[in-house]
Amino acid sequence: MASSSIEKERRPTRVLDGSRVAVEIKREVAETVTLLNRVYGVSPRLAVVRIGDDQASEVYVRNKVRTSAEVGIMSEHFALPATTTIDELLNLITSLNNREEVDGILVQLPLPGGMDSARVLEAIDPAKDVDGFHPINVGRLAQGQLALVPCTPAGIIELLVREGIEIEGARACVVGRSHIVGRPVAALLLQRNATVTICHSFTRDLSSATSQADILIAAIGRPAFIRGSHIKPGAIVVDVGMNKVTDEGAARALFNREEVERRVETIRKRGYTLIGDVHPAEASEVAGALTPVPGGVGPLTVAMLMRNTVDACRCRRGLEEGKGRK
Amino acid sequence: MASSSIEKERRPTRVLDGSRVAVEIKREVAETVTLLNRVYGVSPRLAVVRIGDDQASEVYVRNKVRTSAEVGIMSEHFALPATTTIDELLNLITSLNNREEVDGILVQLPLPGGMDSARVLEAIDPAKDVDGFHPINVGRLAQGQLALVPCTPAGIIELLVREGIEIEGARACVVGRSHIVGRPVAALLLQRNATVTICHSFTRDLSSATSQADILIAAIGRPAFIRGSHIKPGAIVVDVGMNKVTDEGAARALFNREEVERRVETIRKRGYTLIGDVHPAEASEVAGALTPVPGGVGPLTVAMLMRNTVDACRCRRGLEEGKGRK
Repeated sequence: MASSSIEKERRPTRVLDGSRVAVEIKREVAETVTLLNRVYGVSPRLAVVRIGDDQASEVYVRNKVRTSAEVGIMSEHFALPATTTIDELLNLITSLNNREEVDGILVQLPLPGGMDSARVLEAIDPAKDVDGFHPINVGRLAQGQLALVPCTPAGIIELLVREGIEIEGARACVVGRSHIVGRPVAALLLQRNATVTICHSFTRDLSSATSQADILIAAIGRPAFIRGSHIKPGAIVVDVGMNKVTDEGAARALFNREEVERRVETIRKRGYTLIGDVHPAEASEVAGALTPVPGGVGPLTVAMLMRNTVDACRCRRGLEEGKGRK
Repeated sequence: MASSSIEKERRPTRVLDGSRVAVEIKREVAETVTLLNRVYGVSPRLAVVRIGDDQASEVYVRNKVRTSAEVGIMSEHFALPATTTIDELLNLITSLNNREEVDGILVQLPLPGGMDSARVLEAIDPAKDVDGFHPINVGRLAQGQLALVPCTPAGIIELLVREGIEIEGARACVVGRSHIVGRPVAALLLQRNATVTICHSFTRDLSSATSQADILIAAIGRPAFIRGSHIKPGAIVVDVGMNKVTDEGAARALFNREEVERRVETIRKRGYTLIGDVHPAEASEVAGALTPVPGGVGPLTVAMLMRNTVDACRCRRGLEEGKGRK
């Protein structure tokens, strides 16, 4: 009886509103841009390079260019044909490296098949590497030095910190070990003194690892892969996934009563609705806090790209040194 | 009754003989050196730089120079006074970077207080960075690219592999997050598909994390810190610690019957005996395999430095490319 009454009193899962935090960050960036302009006469400038005609990449790039305009960052967009050779791309990068007024260079991934992305990313001046993928920035991050940090992991930490979630001493579990999310977010959590476990496709008994985590980061790329049974009751769950659900029946099994009709509606209108790597209905029964999809981690990525561009600008030009994040 | 008879039949803890594996590695390196010499007329060359008169550093450096001679690597030893300025040190590094015949450059740590070691380590040509501490090598390691890997972590992996211990799918726990051992060994274990947890001074309930590990790496720097209760029965335990015990009574509490008299003898003769971060008597009651101290991880570090020097030589000079380790 007592236990059942406790169950009934379970607090509703808190929604970690990434969209709101992203707006906050963008507002701060815009203020810094205004200040840099007024005090130093400097305008941060971002160059975005896209090769080929991948639809998703096009949407991402458009979003980055539009957000730049919103916060007052100058941007240049280079859309190169799929037939571009690696030498042509490297030449463009060299010219952007050499242009003093360019603060940030971003080459949108994935590159066309067969192009050596490690070689391309290493060609970017580390001081302008706003995606934080250059090995020297990866190494500096791992060594706890000042570095440009990949945007999604940096956004996740920013969200946790601004939402008042204690990282120090927490057990954190990162599922997925990509170079874009899993590994760098694990490095950042470790730097903030969490005890960090990294799981992946070779992990045996995944739920025994995940269900001990006070902070669970899912960055796998498989829809609703993390079920209720993977989650420690009350845990903070960050869902980095972004997958499409096109089937109404599937949607009905994934979303809870309050949400399902809206989602079905979205499928009927757009042909799909977005779902993360975490089963939303099950997670909302167990987790203490959860990032929604969409509106959780997604908007933070672009916001942090803006902040990285401004940080790169200040650091390169020696304005208010040392204000970059670790 | 059954359980007690099973206990009695417990297999004795296997000793992971690092000294033997180190001899094996050095023999292989010596063979490669002979081959490089015969086929290409090339002699790998290592430059070791030491600043000040730290006693332990002097012993380490002497050991590195002597081992170089053993395997046929040419070595140069620069012993600079404690009064050396950072600019003088950077000048020396630049001249070593520029000397075509120098394949490896090692600056012995720790540097004298007040000297910016990050700046010194970044000055070393990454292609000659046989300690693997340059951020670009740290980043390449994290990204799973070809890199020069820190010697102790590389030696630990080499030991596990040569002893036939399966890393893939194992739960590994690394206690300690130094840039020299803890973090890079975690990166290497992850690359070999272990599920990796990193613990440190902020970890709450350490034994709940360690006692789930199939492979437990202790790299903390506190004598006998890891007790029997931290260890999963049958686990592989790698003890990276190297601490001095000077008190006979303390030694009697730490070593088991077969070993204690020899250890007390050593204390009487030399003034101390070496102990790791793992309680040896307790661990030998629980672990499936254990690296001894001394004779476990220690000898592997210098052996791997030799291998890194030969790898750097081959890679820099374009001889048998791609043979470097990850």
